[in-house]
This record gives sequence, C-alpha cells and structure tokens, in this order.
Amino acid sequence: MQACPPALGTSHGTAIWEQRLAKTRIFPVIMSGGSGTRIWPLSTQDRPKQFHALGAGRSMIEETALRFSGTHGDIEFLDPIVIAGQSHRDLVLELLGNSGVKLSALVLEPEGRNTAATAALAALVAQELDPGALVLLAPADHLVSRPKDLVAAVSAAARVVSDRIVVFGITPSGPETSYGYIHQGERLSDGVHTVTAFKEKPDAALAQSYLDEGGYSWNAGIFFFRPSLMLEEFEHAADIREGARAALARGRREGVEIHLDPATFAKVRSLPVDIAVMEKTRRAAVAPCDVGWADVGSWSELWRLSDKDAGGNAVSGSATLLDSANNLVRGEGVHVSAIGVSDLVIVATRDAVLVMPRSRAQDVKKVIPGQS
Amino acid sequence: MQACPPALGTSHGTAIWEQRLAKTRIFPVIMSGGSGTRIWPLSTQDRPKQFHALGAGRSMIEETALRFSGTHGDIEFLDPIVIAGQSHRDLVLELLGNSGVKLSALVLEPEGRNTAATAALAALVAQELDPGALVLLAPADHLVSRPKDLVAAVSAAARVVSDRIVVFGITPSGPETSYGYIHQGERLSDGVHTVTAFKEKPDAALAQSYLDEGGYSWNAGIFFFRPSLMLEEFEHAADIREGARAALARGRREGVEIHLDPATFAKVRSLPVDIAVMEKTRRAAVAPCDVGWADVGSWSELWRLSDKDAGGNAVSGSATLLDSANNLVRGEGVHVSAIGVSDLVIVATRDAVLVMPRSRAQDVKKVIPGQS
Repeated sequence: MQACPPALGTSHGTAIWEQRLAKTRIFPVIMSGGSGTRIWPLSTQDRPKQFHALGAGRSMIEETALRFSGTHGDIEFLDPIVIAGQSHRDLVLELLGNSGVKLSALVLEPEGRNTAATAALAALVAQELDPGALVLLAPADHLVSRPKDLVAAVSAAARVVSDRIVVFGITPSGPETSYGYIHQGERLSDGVHTVTAFKEKPDAALAQSYLDEGGYSWNAGIFFFRPSLMLEEFEHAADIREGARAALARGRREGVEIHLDPATFAKVRSLPVDIAVMEKTRRAAVAPCDVGWADVGSWSELWRLSDKDAGGNAVSGSATLLDSANNLVRGEGVHVSAIGVSDLVIVATRDAVLVMPRSRAQDVKKVIPGQS
Repeated sequence: MQACPPALGTSHGTAIWEQRLAKTRIFPVIMSGGSGTRIWPLSTQDRPKQFHALGAGRSMIEETALRFSGTHGDIEFLDPIVIAGQSHRDLVLELLGNSGVKLSALVLEPEGRNTAATAALAALVAQELDPGALVLLAPADHLVSRPKDLVAAVSAAARVVSDRIVVFGITPSGPETSYGYIHQGERLSDGVHTVTAFKEKPDAALAQSYLDEGGYSWNAGIFFFRPSLMLEEFEHAADIREGARAALARGRREGVEIHLDPATFAKVRSLPVDIAVMEKTRRAAVAPCDVGWADVGSWSELWRLSDKDAGGNAVSGSATLLDSANNLVRGEGVHVSAIGVSDLVIVATRDAVLVMPRSRAQDVKKVIPGQS
C-alpha cells in the first residue's frame, strides 16, 4: 500500500503513519552544555552563551531548535530532545516555549560529564522514544548562517548513516588553531567520505599545512547516527554507556522531563565523544559542508561575524557612539556611550562591564571576578 | 554678665544662651542646585553630583554639611538650611539623615531659578529663624580637601561681614578657563580684601595674564553675609528678592520643610547672584584662600584629584584591571573588568556605561541618551 496524504481536516491515522514511514525520522538532540567564559560578561554560569541572542534575534538554543525542524525532502525532524544542565531547566523551557518548540524529551544532567555521556544519553533516549529514528546531535551554541545547506548535508549523510557515524566537517575559512581537524578519505556517497584521521587542535603552521594539502575540515562537534550503532561503538567506553543507561533508569520522569539520578551520573567517566568513540570506531564518516558555521568563541570573532556600521562598529542593544571606529559595543539592559575609541570590545550588562582591545579577546577569563 | 559653660548634663538655658551670644552664629545654607551632566552617567537628573561620593566615603552634600558644623573659636555653625529641588527632597533627607545632620530648614524649590533667587531665599529664611545669625552660602557639590583652612577663612571674614558681602577666592592652581576670576583690591583686614572686579571666564591667554599679574583668585560661588545686608544689596534686582519673599510667604510649611509656592516661584527672574548683586554692590569683599577646593567638573579632573594605584589607575567600586594604566575606572553596583587599556575613563552604573579617553571628558554631554 502506497503512502498518500491524509484527507484535509481528518484524522487519517493509517495514512499519516505510512507517510511517516516514507521519511527518515531524525531526533535533533540539542546539547546545551558548557558554561563558557569566553564571551563573559554576556555569558555567565547562570546564563551561558546558548541562552543569548548573538547573531539573530532569538537565542542560540532557539535558533538551533528551529534550524532542525520540519520536513525536508526525505527527512523529517521530530520534536527535539534537549540535554541540558539541571540548573538551566527553567531557561530552556522558557526560551524554547517562546519559539513554540515542543520537546520530545528534556534530559537534565545534575552536572556536566562531557560529550561521551551526552551522546550515550542521546542514543538511549531516542531509542526509547522511537526505535526507528536517527539522532542528529548538535551543540546549542553555534551559529549557522546557511541552515538549508546544513540540512542538505544531513540529507546526503542519511544515505550512509545506517552503517556510519557521520560527523559534519566545516570547510575551513582559514588556518584556525582553535578547532580539531578531520582528514577525509575515500568517497562513500555524494558529499560523504571516510575519515582518515581526527587531528587535535594544530599550531598555526600545521593548520596552514592542512589547508595547503586539502581534504581537511573543522570538527564542529555535530554528529549524525543510528542510536544502536552509536551504542555499539561505545565498546571501548562501555562504562560510560552503562553509566548513562543506569542514570536514566534510576532517574525521575515528569512529563517530558528526565531528571538523571545524581549519584549514578556523578560516577560516569567524563570524556569527549571524539575520544571515547570517534577516534576508535572504524565506522566514522565525514560530511564536509560549507554552511556559514561559527562557534563564536570570542568577542573578536563575534565582531568579525557581525553586521557593522559605516565606521566598522558592531553595535547591539542601546548605545551612542561618537568619533569611534571598529568597536564591538553591546549594551544588555544598559546604555553604552563611547567617545573617541577604536578597536575596542565594550560589553555591558546590568552586572558587569568588559572593556578591552579586540586583540585581547583571548584574555577575558583572566578578568572574570570570582574566578582564579 | 559673663558667658560661662553650662554645668555638664544640665539644661542650663540662660548660660547656653549667653555662651551662644559670645559666638558669631552662622547658618550654613547649602545650595543643592544644578543637575550637571559633566560627570554622567554617575550624575543624572534624578541623582546629581552632590548626592554621590566623589572624593570621600560620604556624598558631597553630606561632606558639605559636615564641613560647616560645630564651634570653631569665635564662630558657631548652626544646623544648616538646605535649599534643594523639590524632586530631591527624599534624597536630601536620607543622605543627611545618614550623617546625623539636623536641618534648621529645608527649602524646596519647585524648579531651579538660579542663584540670585537662592541667595534671597537664604537671607530671608535665616532672618526668620534667627535675626542675629549670618549666612554662609555654599554649593553642595564641591570638594574641599582642607576644610579647616576654609573655616579659618570664614573666621577671618567674620571681622568684616557686618558691612560686606564676602566671596571666597580660591588660589588658582593654574590658568583655568572654566571659572570666573576675582581681582582683589586693598586689604580690609587680615585675609580680606576689597574686590576690584569680577571677571568672566577668561580664555587661556587672559587666564595666564591674571596669574602673571597676581591678585586674582577663582570665584567658587561661596558667599558669607549678613542677611539684611544681602537683602539691601538686591536693590538692582528687587523683583527677585520680592518674588522669593512671596514664594516663601505663600509656601507650605511642614516641620522644617518649606515648600515654595510653585506659581509664585515660577515667575521669579532667573539670574546668577554674581550678576544680580555681586557685580553691582559696592560692599563686596574677597577672602582669598587655598583650601584644596575643586568643583570636580569633569571625569578628567576627578582622575587628577584621585588617589591612584602604581599604574596610575584611579579605581573605585568593584573592578579588575589587567595590563592597564592611567585610567579612571568606576563601577557603581556593577563590576568593571578592563584589559590592556590606557588613559581611559570607564564609568559604569546599572543603567549606563561611559567609555572615552580622559582627553575627551568635555564631550560627555554629547553622548547622553535622551539629550540633544
């Protein structure tokens, strides 16, 4: 029996089911981890980067959820699963609620145990909710200026995902030293290659040699996989998988919320999924893509990415500038006035203010009060 | 009958009265006018400069009240009269209350009508409260680092005040162009001279010529007078005196508070007392003094006056500085972090932030939001 659309306005269960069968169902699993200090004072432990609007008008976690929604050709994004810190529960629900995002599940981690545990949780929860669905695991705090191209890369990767854990490789725009690199091997399918090697963050010379050589892309930490395959490939880190499984089993459920068992989860080994799984599996694949990706890891990067006025100033919030050029100025609930300054970062919230040359953006962590 | 101190712990009315008779009784009259924008964002219309601590730990209006209190040789300061804007009533009472200052009167102006009206009010209210007392009329928003020397100058001036309106002349520390100058004439008494001329704010060359010539001092707007003499010398601005008198007579009294009649006070001509009285009277005198006076008319001046760390940074409030030199940094209820900046003013409140080189301090008014 062939899938056909249900009659408009009717609840044509069978037809809907069969139409869905024709699609590749994907759970976006949004990792709202980290409490980065690199864009303090906007980002704080209470409200890290993903809960702020950096590029667009919505917070990054909302943008991430909206980016992976709806039906696109053969793929269908299900309502997302969010894995977040327990302390950010209310923020997640408030912000995603603002954007009308319905959650399949909200997994609340009592503490951060790194991305291997998160990937295992993603696979286990997705498997429980819909054994036939795939997982697209993505951080909540990245910018993607061409989301359609990323969805197209997901579509392409879907052709190999039954037997591969796919990582998306961002086409490098320069010899960046703050990302890991992926070296691609033979072609598996249109837009998907085997992985020859995962490379640690290189120094500048090595990064340049990668670009000169070609076939390298940035590891953006976005993964696409069949849950049962991911769980199998935890064979060298089975303790993490079983720890995650136990923390889930002993956790408390409340509607879509899953509160992991704190004592159990605290014992889970903290390891990046790249090390626990990706560098060991022989079933990795890379889908290189050029999607306007940025992780906005510093104020200077945000200035570079931002729209600017005629004087080169990237201004957001409430601000008055006089005789000032090439600054990033951001007033969050606070008015910022600047006179006669250039190449500065000026970020103000109601709690704290940061002033520095853009060139010192990597030193922010040294001046956060209460941190050593 | 000779004055003698009252027995300790007794209420020896007659003796106290006679002891007081032996002293020159002076009402400090504190002018809490103005809503200067020169040290925005600290100073705002709601809370102008005099209600902030700039030099010491107390607000400037408290410092002013405490400066002119107690008994000093032959002079006795009575509880002050404060003349303030109606909208600042609560702030005046709260701050002076914090410092235990008791008020003789609080005259509330429905709107500012300049210093001639204020001087007339000062004379009229003082006369009403104690016909034998003198008036020391002083702005609430000046710093005086050697208050004892100022009190000594008041003592010296007391010898001529029955027949003179005395203005205190600040020994110039440089050819400042932002103050009026007073040229002194013949000596009247120790530390008191006639006034040859009041000079408008000069340009730099003229200011330098005043310093080269000698006998010039800055007009700090601090006046000392017998109320009845001041009222007589309003002969060329009698309308202002009578307007003030009518606004008082029609005003509302409530404890020490005198709420001037708004309709009447609105009609009073707005003129500085310097023009209305001082430039016309033949009974002006100047008491030159070197008392560490400053009106703190800009952020750069405050930096110059402030204690600094080894790097030349004048820091107040909560701040973290790294590789930064010769800045003024002030966090009011907000933490300020700065990296690698020099010669800047960084002032942050919970409402607004100002960043500029110290050399641009005169341009602050151009970047205050909501002002044209």
